[in-house]
This record gives sequence, C-alpha cells and structure tokens, in this order.
Amino acid sequence: MRPNITPDIDLATRLFATLRERTFDGIGITREAYGPGERIAHEIVRHEAEALGLETRTDQAGNLLMTLPGRDRTAKRIILGSHLDSVPQGGNYDGAAGVLAGLAAVAGMKHARYQPARDITVLAIRAEEGGAWFPSGLPGSRAAIGRLPPEHLQTPRLDTGRSLADHMREEGFNPEAVARGECLLPPETIAAYVELHIEQGPVLDAQQTPIALVTALPGSRRIREGRVIGAYNHSGATPRRYRRDAAIALAEFATKLDDEWARLEALGHTLVVTFCILATTDQAGFTKIPGEAHFQLDIRGTTQAAIDAVHTAIDRLIPEIETRRGVRFELTRGPLNQPTPMSPEIRSALSRAAEELGIDYLTMPSGGGHDAASFAQAGIPTCMIFVRNQNGSHNPNEAMRMEDFAKGCAVIARWAAEAAG
Amino acid sequence: MRPNITPDIDLATRLFATLRERTFDGIGITREAYGPGERIAHEIVRHEAEALGLETRTDQAGNLLMTLPGRDRTAKRIILGSHLDSVPQGGNYDGAAGVLAGLAAVAGMKHARYQPARDITVLAIRAEEGGAWFPSGLPGSRAAIGRLPPEHLQTPRLDTGRSLADHMREEGFNPEAVARGECLLPPETIAAYVELHIEQGPVLDAQQTPIALVTALPGSRRIREGRVIGAYNHSGATPRRYRRDAAIALAEFATKLDDEWARLEALGHTLVVTFCILATTDQAGFTKIPGEAHFQLDIRGTTQAAIDAVHTAIDRLIPEIETRRGVRFELTRGPLNQPTPMSPEIRSALSRAAEELGIDYLTMPSGGGHDAASFAQAGIPTCMIFVRNQNGSHNPNEAMRMEDFAKGCAVIARWAAEAAG
Repeated sequence: MRPNITPDIDLATRLFATLRERTFDGIGITREAYGPGERIAHEIVRHEAEALGLETRTDQAGNLLMTLPGRDRTAKRIILGSHLDSVPQGGNYDGAAGVLAGLAAVAGMKHARYQPARDITVLAIRAEEGGAWFPSGLPGSRAAIGRLPPEHLQTPRLDTGRSLADHMREEGFNPEAVARGECLLPPETIAAYVELHIEQGPVLDAQQTPIALVTALPGSRRIREGRVIGAYNHSGATPRRYRRDAAIALAEFATKLDDEWARLEALGHTLVVTFCILATTDQAGFTKIPGEAHFQLDIRGTTQAAIDAVHTAIDRLIPEIETRRGVRFELTRGPLNQPTPMSPEIRSALSRAAEELGIDYLTMPSGGGHDAASFAQAGIPTCMIFVRNQNGSHNPNEAMRMEDFAKGCAVIARWAAEAAG
Repeated sequence: MRPNITPDIDLATRLFATLRERTFDGIGITREAYGPGERIAHEIVRHEAEALGLETRTDQAGNLLMTLPGRDRTAKRIILGSHLDSVPQGGNYDGAAGVLAGLAAVAGMKHARYQPARDITVLAIRAEEGGAWFPSGLPGSRAAIGRLPPEHLQTPRLDTGRSLADHMREEGFNPEAVARGECLLPPETIAAYVELHIEQGPVLDAQQTPIALVTALPGSRRIREGRVIGAYNHSGATPRRYRRDAAIALAEFATKLDDEWARLEALGHTLVVTFCILATTDQAGFTKIPGEAHFQLDIRGTTQAAIDAVHTAIDRLIPEIETRRGVRFELTRGPLNQPTPMSPEIRSALSRAAEELGIDYLTMPSGGGHDAASFAQAGIPTCMIFVRNQNGSHNPNEAMRMEDFAKGCAVIARWAAEAAG
C-alpha cells in the first residue's frame, strides 16, 4: 500500500527565505564553492535536517548526507540531491531547489510516520558551478561517489587561483582521502539518483507547463578561445579585393554556422550553437579595417552525432573563408564531453507519478550540465525533474513559483516512496 | 618654351629626416594639430622656405604660405599643398609628402632661375587629421580659403576636450578673424590646387605602379554608433526559437551587407562598406547568449548613388532581421558628405606631364578624404596625385620610396611650370 506523502512546502519556503537572507550579496545570491556562502548554506540545511531527526553525515569532500533510515539499512539507497553553491550574484533557486525539494519530501515522510524499506538520502553537493569556481566538471558529486580524478584536486578556483585541494582543506575536509577515492556513496550502494532543478531556459514558461522530465544531459565540445587574424588597413583606401578583414570573416563564419544549426535542427537533431563572444579587439577603431577578431563558441548536443556534425561544418567552412578572405583562424577545441542519457525507467516511473497526481509535464532534454551526470556516468539509474522558472538562471532574477516547486516536490515524494518500497 | 625643372629631391629627403627626428614620439610620428608637433613641423618648413628665398606668410588660422612670386602678382595663383599634422604614433609621410613635394618643385624652379607668370604657393595646412584631433571636416584648409563655418571653431579636440578656437589662440592665431572669413586665399584668386599625398591603401603597390591621378574624393554617410539589443539567456537551456541573440543578428546583418557591397561593385559602383567595430559587450561571457552587440559602420562611395544604395539595403535588411531574430537595432546615421569629383582638365594635364616624363601611372578614386576637398568644393579646379606607399598610412610603418616620391614631384613640377606659364 502506497503511503500518502505530502511534501512539507512550508519548510522549503522557510529555508529559501533563510538562504536568501544569509547569502544575499547586495545584488544577488553568492554561495562560493568551498567558501563562506556555500558553508552557510550547508549549516542552514544541516540544522533543519537535524531538527527533523534525519541522520546527517559529511563526507571527506564536504558533501552533506541527510538520511531517512530505511527498514533495511544494507539495501541500496535512493538519493534526492542537488548542489548548494551558486554563481556570484546569482539566484536563490539554482541548486538549492533540489536540496530543499528532497528535504520537503523526506519531511513529508516523517510527518506521515512513514519508514521506507531502504534509506532515502537527501544529498547537498559541493561545487557544481564550474563556470564560476572550479572549471573541471562537477568535483563535489564525483567525489561523493569516489570518482573524482585526483588531478582535478589541483584545479585552481577561477577567482582565487588557489587549488580545489587547498579550498577543501581550508573548509575542514580531506583532499588526500578524496584522492584515494574514499567516499560514503559507492555507486554499487545506490539504487537511484533523482535531482530536481529549476529549468534554466524559457521552455516551460513558454509552454505553460509547471515541470518537465529530462531525457538527457547534453554533451559538448566547445571552442573557448578562437581568433581570426587578418590585417589592419585604411577603411577608405583599401578596396574590397585587397582586404583581409577579420571581423567580416568572423561574421560570415558565425552566420553560416548558424544556418548549419538550423539545418541540423530541421533534420531532428537537438543541439545549441552559440557565439557567446564575437568581437573585434581593442585595436579596432573608426576608419580601420579590423585586423583581428575573437570568439567563444558553445556547442552542445544530446547526441554525439549532433556535436560531430557541427564540428564537421566548422572544418568545411573555415578553409573556404580563409582562402576567400585572406584571413587565418586559430582555435583550440575542448575535449568532447559525451551526452548523458537519463534512465528511461525512472523517467517512466516519474511520469506515472505525475499522471496519478494530475500534474502536467513536458519531456525534454536538459540544456545545461548537472550533478546528475556524475551519477549517470557511474552507471547509477538517474533522472532529473525541471521546475518552471522565469528569467533564466545564474542571475538575481530567477523566479520559480512555489506552486510549481510544490508540484515537482509532490512528484519526487510520490516516486521516492514507491521506489523505496 | 617650357623650362626644364628638376625637383630638388635632396632638399625633400633632408626635410623628411629633420621632421622625423624632431617629431618622433618613441614609437611613431606625432604632430598634434595646433600643438607642439605641428608647430615644430611648420618651423622646419618655414625655415627652409626662407632659406630658398620664398615669400612666407602665415594666415589667421596658422596655415603657412610659401610663395615663388610670379611675373604678374595679380594673376590667379597655383597652390601645391597638403597638411603637416599627423595622427598620434603615425607615419612621417602622410601630409608632409605633399608639402615637401611642393617645396622640392619650387626649389627646382629657383635652381633653374625660372620665374613663373603667376605666383606658385606651397601651402602647409593645419589640422587635417579629423579622426585624431578635430572631427569637423578639414578646418585648416577651409579657413585658408575663408570658408570655415564659425561654429566649427567650437569643435573640441578629441584628446584635450578644448575647442579649436582655444587651441588656435594658444598657438598665436586669431579665431575671431577666422570666424569673420578673413583669409589670404579667397577662392577667386586661385587658378588651381594640386595635392600630392601617399596612397593610404595597397593598390599602387599591388599594381606595381609608382603614382596615381585621382578621379574623385569619396563621399560618405557613416553610422558611428549602432547597437543591437536582444536578451541575455543561458546558452545551453535556451532553444533556438526562444533566442534573442544580438551577436548573431549583427553577424547576419554584416554578412548580408557585405554581400550587397559585392553586388553593387559588380554593377560598377565604387564604394566601401566596413564594419570597423563589430562586437559583443563586456557583459558577454561563456555559456551566455549575447543580449547586446554594437558596431561602427564606415560607408563611402565616389557617387551619392552608391552611398544611397547601401543605406537602402540597410533599411531593407534591418526590419527583416529584427522580426526574425527578436532583436532591435538602434543606430544614428551621420550626415551625407557628398563625393567630390576632381577636375578632369587638371587630371588630363597631369597625365600629359607624366607621359612626357615616361612615368607610369594609374587613374583611381581616393578612398580617404583630403584637404583637396575643401578647394574643390569651393569651385577651385583641384586634383591629387597619389604616391605608392607600403604598409598603409596612420601607422609608424608608412614606407614611401623616395624614387616614387621623386616621380610624383617631377609630374607636379612639370605640370605647375606649364600651368603657371
């Protein structure tokens, strides 16, 4: 018989308010990975978990486990997790929503005096925001399952220049143990990992749907630094055929690659191709033909075929533009990060839960990367739930509605109770 | 009987060396308009003219007249002129070559004991480099012929912010007299103005030709500040159809306007369309879709029809891109500066002189503006000679060869002796 679990949304609402109050930076929310903001967030959440009577433990990397013990403590556990760090001047929901959803669900189980057959652990993960702090992917969640490559401990934090190991140690954790793979959550002890997260794009809002079940996390192969080298010349005095205009060469490259994206999308591929930076340099100025331009290119796709197709187009376009326009492209491709499919079985169970609750949902790929990738890549059945959010993420204007969050929590709680047995 | 005039190239070579030595800034040449560098250059040139026995006078705006008196002092004079200011960290030849060519030609006349029928005046003009000092067009040459609009005296110098009038006064000249149109060279007293100048582009070098005769100075209608406004969003999480990407909109605009340029050129128009700046802003960064971009657009043509055709294309492209990409363009068009045709009669006389001297030449439009425009626009028969120059202009690497300069001087001297009678 399935227990009737009502997530404790009041608890989550209160925690969101405390988190905002304690980690507001004057403009937005700042919770530095392995720094004061993240530490404060962990303290707030741990305090609440202890008040609820959950077992709390912190692993060698500082990840916080808050466990509702099951009847069989040796059975594989269920994890409801997300991260508590934020980008600088970010929003209150990116990351924290997933941790508070887990707490709300488990609090609802406590209130219903429900004891699951297996442990259900709410996991507050460290250092997910790689674009802001530690660029090597997802050190907190990878350390949580003993899968952090030791060399990643040397990654410098982008703002301080000091290593992940230094920052871990400074917060009281144990990078040497992390390097040895010591952890509290070996993959073979985990039955499933489910992460709720705000949607970082506009799809749910545009489609007027409160939540989505995620099919895959995208892979990527980026070009973080690309340059086009031409020659500066007098704009008036240099006829078209003598020009080596770096800016117009880059503009043509961007336009044609954008056309290629449209073509691939029409063929059914799911991908993004974004020139995040596209610019002449400070040497540019009026009446000069730009002799140099630079760009950053973000390429993501839910299949490797989509990512490869973009790079094939790049390889075709560049030599043609170089020859015709007398310029030279210089670029370094980043590594291929494989796309990560989510578990169809968990998605199907989540969709059943949503349908039984009468909650409307979309099925869509994620655009961003998430801690869920670490678990899925370790072979753990993994899925994600997105909650509708206005104004994007990574900015102070994130605007998740609590009624949408409550629907996500209800689905998670129902699924977890069923999955835990 | 035509006198046999040999321009004094040694004199010019010596003056170039002195100018370089006295106005070198450590990197290139700096001769500030109405500032120390220009003042030094005027002193050097005046000293040489006096040593040659030329009549020297300075007008109310500081332009320097160095005159070889003719037999009839009341006849309309011939002017061989150019400017002595330079851009900051510029080259030694842009401007100075025309003044020294005039001096070399007149020195040759002196050495040959030739007295022309009418005055021949070498004119050293002030403040031509509008991009570096006083942006309102050509105040020195316009003041020389009493045609400077008085309001232009309030134009601030770009580096100091103080007005043209202030700078004139500080150098010992008389902006009030300039405002009243007082001048030494009323247009009705001038038979012809000819200006030698280094070519600022690569055409003569590519065509292996030492000099060119100029058909027209281009007109222009620029967009000095254009913006594209879209919306910043998460690069991974915002699918194509929800984007308002300012950078890709600008790239498409630039690419399509460049295609339009190629089409107009194929139809026989002579024009340039240069995106001098084309850039995302400092708010751009990795994993963000650019919400804003900006550009500077230089549009020049030797006919108004060519300039108008580009603006017509802009008016067609922008609304189409705005609608399709969800962005907004903001731009202010500058005033239409009319193209200025050179005198076909003088060009024909110059070409005859070149042919008689066995000097190869091209006939081509100018890409940049020059003091010659002030004279032509006042109805004075005007033409220009370009001298081959490597590495463009407005930089320390200008590389005119003295043998090419000597050919330009020979043509000017022969023409001037014939035109003066």
